[in-house]
Amino acid sequence: MNWKMIFRIISYILMIEIVLMFPALLISIAEHESAAIHGYLWSFLIMAIVAALMFVLTRNARKGFNSRDGFVTTGLTWLIMSALGCLPFFISGEVPNYVDCLFEMVSGFTTTGSSILTNVEALDKGLLWWRSFSHWVGGMGILVFMLAIVPLGGRNQGFTMHILRAESPGPSVGKVVPRMRKTASILYGIYIGLTIADILFLRAGGMNWFESCCHAFGTAGTGGFGIKNDSYMSYSPYEQYVTTVFMLLFSVNFSIYFMILTKHFREAFFDEEFKAFWGIVAACIIVLTINVRNLYPTLEEAFRHSAFTTATILSTTGYATTDFNKWSAFAKAVILLMMCLGACAGSTGGGIKTIRTVLLCKILRRNLHKNLHPEEVAVVEVNGRRVDEQIIRNTEAYLIAYRVIVIAAFLLVSLDGFDVETNLSAVLATFNNIGPGLGAVGPTGNFAAYSNFAKLVLTFCMLAGRLEIYPILIFFSRKTWKKGR
Amino acid sequence: MNWKMIFRIISYILMIEIVLMFPALLISIAEHESAAIHGYLWSFLIMAIVAALMFVLTRNARKGFNSRDGFVTTGLTWLIMSALGCLPFFISGEVPNYVDCLFEMVSGFTTTGSSILTNVEALDKGLLWWRSFSHWVGGMGILVFMLAIVPLGGRNQGFTMHILRAESPGPSVGKVVPRMRKTASILYGIYIGLTIADILFLRAGGMNWFESCCHAFGTAGTGGFGIKNDSYMSYSPYEQYVTTVFMLLFSVNFSIYFMILTKHFREAFFDEEFKAFWGIVAACIIVLTINVRNLYPTLEEAFRHSAFTTATILSTTGYATTDFNKWSAFAKAVILLMMCLGACAGSTGGGIKTIRTVLLCKILRRNLHKNLHPEEVAVVEVNGRRVDEQIIRNTEAYLIAYRVIVIAAFLLVSLDGFDVETNLSAVLATFNNIGPGLGAVGPTGNFAAYSNFAKLVLTFCMLAGRLEIYPILIFFSRKTWKKGR
Repeated sequence: MNWKMIFRIISYILMIEIVLMFPALLISIAEHESAAIHGYLWSFLIMAIVAALMFVLTRNARKGFNSRDGFVTTGLTWLIMSALGCLPFFISGEVPNYVDCLFEMVSGFTTTGSSILTNVEALDKGLLWWRSFSHWVGGMGILVFMLAIVPLGGRNQGFTMHILRAESPGPSVGKVVPRMRKTASILYGIYIGLTIADILFLRAGGMNWFESCCHAFGTAGTGGFGIKNDSYMSYSPYEQYVTTVFMLLFSVNFSIYFMILTKHFREAFFDEEFKAFWGIVAACIIVLTINVRNLYPTLEEAFRHSAFTTATILSTTGYATTDFNKWSAFAKAVILLMMCLGACAGSTGGGIKTIRTVLLCKILRRNLHKNLHPEEVAVVEVNGRRVDEQIIRNTEAYLIAYRVIVIAAFLLVSLDGFDVETNLSAVLATFNNIGPGLGAVGPTGNFAAYSNFAKLVLTFCMLAGRLEIYPILIFFSRKTWKKGR
Repeated sequence: MNWKMIFRIISYILMIEIVLMFPALLISIAEHESAAIHGYLWSFLIMAIVAALMFVLTRNARKGFNSRDGFVTTGLTWLIMSALGCLPFFISGEVPNYVDCLFEMVSGFTTTGSSILTNVEALDKGLLWWRSFSHWVGGMGILVFMLAIVPLGGRNQGFTMHILRAESPGPSVGKVVPRMRKTASILYGIYIGLTIADILFLRAGGMNWFESCCHAFGTAGTGGFGIKNDSYMSYSPYEQYVTTVFMLLFSVNFSIYFMILTKHFREAFFDEEFKAFWGIVAACIIVLTINVRNLYPTLEEAFRHSAFTTATILSTTGYATTDFNKWSAFAKAVILLMMCLGACAGSTGGGIKTIRTVLLCKILRRNLHKNLHPEEVAVVEVNGRRVDEQIIRNTEAYLIAYRVIVIAAFLLVSLDGFDVETNLSAVLATFNNIGPGLGAVGPTGNFAAYSNFAKLVLTFCMLAGRLEIYPILIFFSRKTWKKGR
């Protein structure tokens, strides 16, 4: 393990984090929120000292960097970034329990949106801003961001690759690789452009700038932290529709936009994941609209809430326009299923990702065929190209690990004594980075009632879900901590 | 498809089924149960006509038989056997709804033990006997039984293999193959021997012969149909302990007994699945005993109910000595987990099977390693021998299909409007061939409240679970029904 290099990278990250937190401090100053100002200033001091210490102590770091280092860097970065990023909540005294602060911050960076706050509206505006902005930061991945702006150790392509592999969602890094820097800036350009569009559309609907920005950050990162206690329920149908559309837009693989921008329309619209995703979206909206039709006065309303709920769950955002906890058992089963499906790879959304579902069906069909005709060679193809067996193996390992973690977390969380629906949906909602679940952690509930232990388990789930398990598994594996590696 | 050969085999099976039902008729005659006698006689007539028609019409069947034929034979055999085997319930009028009869019969043959009966004790003894005996028949597999006794088309080893592969539980047929006939008789010998031992132990505890036999059949097949409304709750601790031990004995791969009989002790006791299974059993008993300790007056009682519940769920039997539905959320989560784990391959138990869990962990570790060291060759080993990649692929396909079916069934069953705990556990309990679930389908409840549609979905789950998905998937696949194959 090249620990020195790892901590050197983290020292950069902490400095970037201070910069990213700065606008929140300005808002607190503008709003005369003395507790939050106090919190931010002390946090900056602590973070600066930690970063400076790391930077000085890792002066003579050697360059070598293998893939285990990449995974550990990613895991550790996200942990430390959250552990220090939540200090303003704690120091300001607005959230008195540190575990709660950590949960809230990890929920922010991982774009989960699960909250332990029982009264969001009581929080200082500066803290609300940072909470929502953390979604935006976490959505694209802070390490990828750093790689795009910091010239770290020259042209070490392998190093960049290892980090990218560890932080990017989806089974393969794919199109982003060849000219990484340039592609990263284009992707960030798309991200910023869509976010600004979202802000303007919301502003046009009557939200003030603060609300528009916070909601757009939550939508762009597919996070879901709201600034109202009732999430999106009291906003106008126009604002709900705008957010529905943007949640879905941010669930699409960003390379599709890249293709559209470079006029590869055929490639974009015939992409198998793209088609499958919209097929799932349409199917879920139709099924839900029919199922909940009689709960609402008009068809429009049933459609609007079904579309919003489909978008919020599939994109793993987590806003809510209605208490879907009160829907029928079937609708709730559909929601549980959507929780596992998730968004597209290469988007800011979480979950298993549509491409993995597509791959899964193809692997199943291939293996079924192999079972009947063992002698034939059968390959799995996506978009007409053969999928490497290594990616298939990784997908399968991912799904095994997924199941193991869900079961283990479900067991541990059950120790708190809530019902199966609450516990299972809490684990799925955090692990898939969605936000609210069903039962006691439904759209009108929150995670405050869980014990500290369960909160830490769910915090782990959020991290494992956002980083797609591997970095976290490797970070906690015995080999990583063995001497002489 | 060699349909003629398939139906010829099924005609044999139906004749065997009539013979197997005969003792039940004798019991009904002895007990003067006119409704049941009426039911059996008409059923025999219908079955004999169907079998005779099939036999006559398939006189010139050609010998060729491929693996698809094997799977379809298995799927169809189990369907027809259940569809006709349930006639006595229907014709006697004791169970007036045919879907209920089918559900009950499939539950019997697949050794599930889920019931739609609200009052078991009201049923005629002759019908109770057949219900329990169907567990015993289904436990070892009726096709395997037929292959062992009927000289069908000479020495067509490929044919035998195809059927065996389709009906045997576990990822590979393994040791049974070389001298199939001889091994099959030894395995049946062990099965019969253990069943007789169980009967005698129960008889010694004070049960009458009828009770002892019915319970031993349910235990041997790991089925779980009881003959009392409160299952095992009112039996003595001695009888509960005996059944605990026998449920676990019937969950062990029968080839272990074969090894022990042939004095290969080392091979037997160091078998990885064997070790893993007992490790899981011990862990679950300890955890549950600690967790439910305060619900019972003495430690012995807490231990007894924990051990019985662990055995009943892991072996996928489904008897109950206590209403574990009233246990803590954590204990229920442990039960849900055990539902998925299941017994050992090559036993009469269902579920995912311990060997698949072992394989899964090894695949996960291998793929994790591959991810860090893509250039290295990494094989998966069990018991020091390399596992064929085809078996790994099959295991993975099995688990994918497992998940797809569980999700689909859960969605469809949710249409009836029960809660998540009930629906999810109903699907897991039937698919893993356990019997009772949690919530409304818990040990003191039953499946009667579900709609006919949900019952058919769950019937499908029981069949798919018992036959380990493939035969059922292939039976329902489009290609099977295409012309010219």
